[in-house]
Amino acid sequence: MKALQYRTVGAAPEVVTVPDPEPGPGQVLLKVTAAGVCHSDIAVMSWPAEGFPYALPLTLGHEGAGTVAALGDGVSGLGEGDAVAVYGPWGCGRCATCAQGKENYCLRAADLGIFPPGLGSPGAMAEYLLVDDARHLVPIDGLDPVATVPLTDAGLTPYHAVKRALPALPPGSTAVVIGTGGLGHVAVQLLRAMTAARVIALDVSEEKLALARSVGAHETVLSDARAVDGVRELTDGVGAQAVFDFVGAEPTVRTAGAVAAVESEISIVGIGGGALPVGFGTLPFEASVHAPYWGSRGELIEVIELARAGAVSVHTETCSLDEAPLAYERLHAGDVRGRAVIVPHG
Amino acid sequence: MKALQYRTVGAAPEVVTVPDPEPGPGQVLLKVTAAGVCHSDIAVMSWPAEGFPYALPLTLGHEGAGTVAALGDGVSGLGEGDAVAVYGPWGCGRCATCAQGKENYCLRAADLGIFPPGLGSPGAMAEYLLVDDARHLVPIDGLDPVATVPLTDAGLTPYHAVKRALPALPPGSTAVVIGTGGLGHVAVQLLRAMTAARVIALDVSEEKLALARSVGAHETVLSDARAVDGVRELTDGVGAQAVFDFVGAEPTVRTAGAVAAVESEISIVGIGGGALPVGFGTLPFEASVHAPYWGSRGELIEVIELARAGAVSVHTETCSLDEAPLAYERLHAGDVRGRAVIVPHG
Amino acid sequence: MKALQYRTVGAAPEVVTVPDPEPGPGQVLLKVTAAGVCHSDIAVMSWPAEGFPYALPLTLGHEGAGTVAALGDGVSGLGEGDAVAVYGPWGCGRCATCAQGKENYCLRAADLGIFPPGLGSPGAMAEYLLVDDARHLVPIDGLDPVATVPLTDAGLTPYHAVKRALPALPPGSTAVVIGTGGLGHVAVQLLRAMTAARVIALDVSEEKLALARSVGAHETVLSDARAVDGVRELTDGVGAQAVFDFVGAEPTVRTAGAVAAVESEISIVGIGGGALPVGFGTLPFEASVHAPYWGSRGELIEVIELARAGAVSVHTETCSLDEAPLAYERLHAGDVRGRAVIVPHG
Amino acid sequence: MKALQYRTVGAAPEVVTVPDPEPGPGQVLLKVTAAGVCHSDIAVMSWPAEGFPYALPLTLGHEGAGTVAALGDGVSGLGEGDAVAVYGPWGCGRCATCAQGKENYCLRAADLGIFPPGLGSPGAMAEYLLVDDARHLVPIDGLDPVATVPLTDAGLTPYHAVKRALPALPPGSTAVVIGTGGLGHVAVQLLRAMTAARVIALDVSEEKLALARSVGAHETVLSDARAVDGVRELTDGVGAQAVFDFVGAEPTVRTAGAVAAVESEISIVGIGGGALPVGFGTLPFEASVHAPYWGSRGELIEVIELARAGAVSVHTETCSLDEAPLAYERLHAGDVRGRAVIVPHG
Repeated sequence: MKALQYRTVGAAPEVVTVPDPEPGPGQVLLKVTAAGVCHSDIAVMSWPAEGFPYALPLTLGHEGAGTVAALGDGVSGLGEGDAVAVYGPWGCGRCATCAQGKENYCLRAADLGIFPPGLGSPGAMAEYLLVDDARHLVPIDGLDPVATVPLTDAGLTPYHAVKRALPALPPGSTAVVIGTGGLGHVAVQLLRAMTAARVIALDVSEEKLALARSVGAHETVLSDARAVDGVRELTDGVGAQAVFDFVGAEPTVRTAGAVAAVESEISIVGIGGGALPVGFGTLPFEASVHAPYWGSRGELIEVIELARAGAVSVHTETCSLDEAPLAYERLHAGDVRGRAVIVPHG
Repeated sequence: MKALQYRTVGAAPEVVTVPDPEPGPGQVLLKVTAAGVCHSDIAVMSWPAEGFPYALPLTLGHEGAGTVAALGDGVSGLGEGDAVAVYGPWGCGRCATCAQGKENYCLRAADLGIFPPGLGSPGAMAEYLLVDDARHLVPIDGLDPVATVPLTDAGLTPYHAVKRALPALPPGSTAVVIGTGGLGHVAVQLLRAMTAARVIALDVSEEKLALARSVGAHETVLSDARAVDGVRELTDGVGAQAVFDFVGAEPTVRTAGAVAAVESEISIVGIGGGALPVGFGTLPFEASVHAPYWGSRGELIEVIELARAGAVSVHTETCSLDEAPLAYERLHAGDVRGRAVIVPHG
Repeated sequence: MKALQYRTVGAAPEVVTVPDPEPGPGQVLLKVTAAGVCHSDIAVMSWPAEGFPYALPLTLGHEGAGTVAALGDGVSGLGEGDAVAVYGPWGCGRCATCAQGKENYCLRAADLGIFPPGLGSPGAMAEYLLVDDARHLVPIDGLDPVATVPLTDAGLTPYHAVKRALPALPPGSTAVVIGTGGLGHVAVQLLRAMTAARVIALDVSEEKLALARSVGAHETVLSDARAVDGVRELTDGVGAQAVFDFVGAEPTVRTAGAVAAVESEISIVGIGGGALPVGFGTLPFEASVHAPYWGSRGELIEVIELARAGAVSVHTETCSLDEAPLAYERLHAGDVRGRAVIVPHG
Repeated sequence: MKALQYRTVGAAPEVVTVPDPEPGPGQVLLKVTAAGVCHSDIAVMSWPAEGFPYALPLTLGHEGAGTVAALGDGVSGLGEGDAVAVYGPWGCGRCATCAQGKENYCLRAADLGIFPPGLGSPGAMAEYLLVDDARHLVPIDGLDPVATVPLTDAGLTPYHAVKRALPALPPGSTAVVIGTGGLGHVAVQLLRAMTAARVIALDVSEEKLALARSVGAHETVLSDARAVDGVRELTDGVGAQAVFDFVGAEPTVRTAGAVAAVESEISIVGIGGGALPVGFGTLPFEASVHAPYWGSRGELIEVIELARAGAVSVHTETCSLDEAPLAYERLHAGDVRGRAVIVPHG
């Protein structure tokens, strides 16, 4: 079958032909209907050879959806043709965190050599995808796989961050979303659907702010030197009870801290290399800062339910597997609006 | 000043003239701008003389709003003319529950002889209202007192019930509201504003169901013999993760139990005399049943914030103090749509 | 191999010879080291033929521990000889509740014909036990399987109930445990290990109360007509913030309601057929009543950790598989102190 | 009356005679029975004149206990002679956070010029203390005021931090306490009383580690270059689910981050000037860092209940008001073991 592989550190990904995978006991083979193109793949492909964590060649694609093509021995409760989305952060399934469905924080994955598809295991940018266990599949019958596939990462990651912050966001509170691109504009929708908080969006781009408004942000503030004052003013000096930074660079994490209220939740989701120092007096009292990673199995089910309810949608553009290398180039150049999605069997 | 008093057990309330109250140390005198007419007053006036819990005559009105007319000695942080709503379930302010603002569950109020206004203490259906402590006042500057005053009970009571159920209501879940009158139609709005759950409204009246739809219910089901099947069908047999019964009569609590899902929250808010038996096998596993009473100080602040955000509104009709006895008659006869509000200084 | 089977409705269980099981793909075969004898088996064997939910003959034993004897195809992360305890309430592993490890509340088990071992599937009272999936195994290396096996039900069930009640049990609060036999005396230990609450134990037997004291109950009250007054007195009239009823009969659920405080959690764990009516005025405000069933995968891991820490222990007596029928007789007659455990390979 | 005052920036505090205070409306006058000497007073007295936040002279003492000497007009529910402890972080009592009893995070205190006793308002190191409102008093009848008074800060502050972390500390988890002096050795006791977590204490002093063991720490680790490895080893490489740093200096916050587990709670309680940078990759996934300040009214009630239950105690040494300046000198020199407490009417 065809697959998009990252084959040599520093080189562009290529479409190659690889053997068709076959499901072993407990595994499920999917015919891929959609695979999302994600910024973090570009980050991975920028890492140096020394210490590169995955074996090469690597079939890319950690956002995947498909239809069941074949079931390995011992798999039940699924049938051929079922439409599913793939939960990406695979874990051991048995440790104390996996037992709660938080496989993204599996205690044993590293030791056992378990990797997510596209991030160590062969990914979804291929005609077929081998899924290690049926528990990693969420039914999406009736949903458009192209519109749904970004939810497995670009939806699940902000969902996890927002869900954690819910107790901090009662009526009368304010949520600030910094960076309203792929993940951020989903976060705005999640906040509107799940809370009565006021949502303020920050971005350096007026176009992104317009997008934020169109998906429900109550207020938008251009992310420049006056942004902090702007948020403080909008909140009568109190600040925001939750701040989500989808950029995570030095300037944005500083902004995140500066707009936060007492007892706030600050999620640094972006992997931009910034870090916010926390100590007595550096932030408002009990402002709590953390950097999450992806989300849990139960949360992916909830995100898919939001999509079913029409409460969240991601702007997508599609291309074929052969066009996938170009899609990464365009993403890198900032030319993709929303999410590029590969459709291998277009 | 004029006041509406319940003077004799079994008699109708009367407008009488009583001495003007004066604020003692720590107290606040309000010029009443609005006082809500509530079903529970009718219940109180139906109780027999034996065991009647309050001293008579009793000035009615446990939903009150006003402007500060005078401050007792030692009160600070408030100024004359400030517009406020009154938190009704007064407590001692110092016990373990009051220390969290849950004065509705004060451990010492009964022992100390502390009663809510209109339910033991002189209430808001008068030209002036004496409030025992400034902490029982929530600022409502900029809001219409007539539209706001019902939120102090008809808003706060469902708010408390809904807030408790939030963890049971993630995306993909269902909330059932039984009885979509005064409190129930507020509950529908609260659920829409604060959750992504699907809201199903039940009522015996098609008119009330139309009201429920107009304030956001996703589905409505006529509360007859087929109602349980209707809800089960709408939820693929799973049932509702939260059920709010604003009637609380035998048939409705049975319905509440019959539409509930595993691990659901069932709130019996109505005081209709019904009781739902809970034991192994009587309900789905871990369906949890309780009957709450009013809400906390912090929750009233949050409800008022929802009103400011335009997320909740109560249909009201107004009348003067002199017309208040008639308003109770009309409420009793079922002729009031939404909430009747007394405006003493109209 | 030998197995203890319930073969005919109404008859006593018998030791018979059945074919040795073999693990299919994804399954694990255990050599059983311990299997707990549980009251609920006696309840099952008292049910009438009509509507009996399980196919007969049924190998009993829903509390099981063993060592891995053979791995089915596709199972990894486990090795032969590993000592494990079995999580009993098997679910589909994929639905919204299973995705959080709450397989006890699986939404699809009934539809898919999935049953716990000993309660539909062949159970642990045999030389070998077939476990459907490795995720149902918790490592217990270093622990005595006989002492540990009761924790899979008699430990997990009260653990789940106690964990749910933790927010209601801050310092200064009171927990009441009704029925301090098999599950109840574990609950006392859990409450002492995990909270600073005062623990009051109630039982009709002075011997059981002595057991309760020996495992940490602060106070014990004989469960007679004066018991409610006794608890009210010990709590200055406030009542208990959490009540756990491990009997669940009419008199005990009534006691549970009568000793409960405002905002309390009442867990009816026992399957004694009682039911507590909940409505406005039947119980203190917002006392919440539910009947749980078993616990989650994550919770079993936590209970095992408590055993490792020496914080919980169950009194056990052992017998062979051949003596198992007698063990049920003795349990029925009330002659077992603590838990009887079958050791098939003694 | 006599009072210990900080009169000039940079000078030592002095015992002086000041007018006897009298309670205004709503206020309560206490005859002081005990006042705690706290490290943070030394920090305050080290601040420069420029920007010094409090008016001088300032009567010190933010940990106070006393008996009611006189009630201002309008105060009820208290009687002369009642023994009480003083909740220190006074707020407005009415804002959204005060309405939940979290006056330590009052939104309006700064604007309204409200200061805690000893930190802006006249403090407890005097013969009499004026308390602004009865709600700031917690009954301690039957408890020794000297043993109890440190709980108002040295107890309440770690209690708040521990309570926040409880969900992160199920059985099988580990809590690390860094710095087991005044607050830290209380934290060890709180963790033992309220959780089943394993408690590991770190300190640079073997004597303090011995104290930690004597109050219940399961393990102690000398806080040197090998400390992080020590904790990692004790936790099988997983790290601690909660870390409490009562020093808060650069080296300790770095240690705190280095011993933390995935999804852990890191509380930087000490005011040693350190700050821990949080961003993607700087700490384990979703390790959450915050710096709290004191605690809530409800929490103080709970801490006092722990003292009543014998679950927490602070080593104290007493001295007279005249000896108070010396007590500060001894504290500064590190010569006080546990807490120095001033007894003005000894």
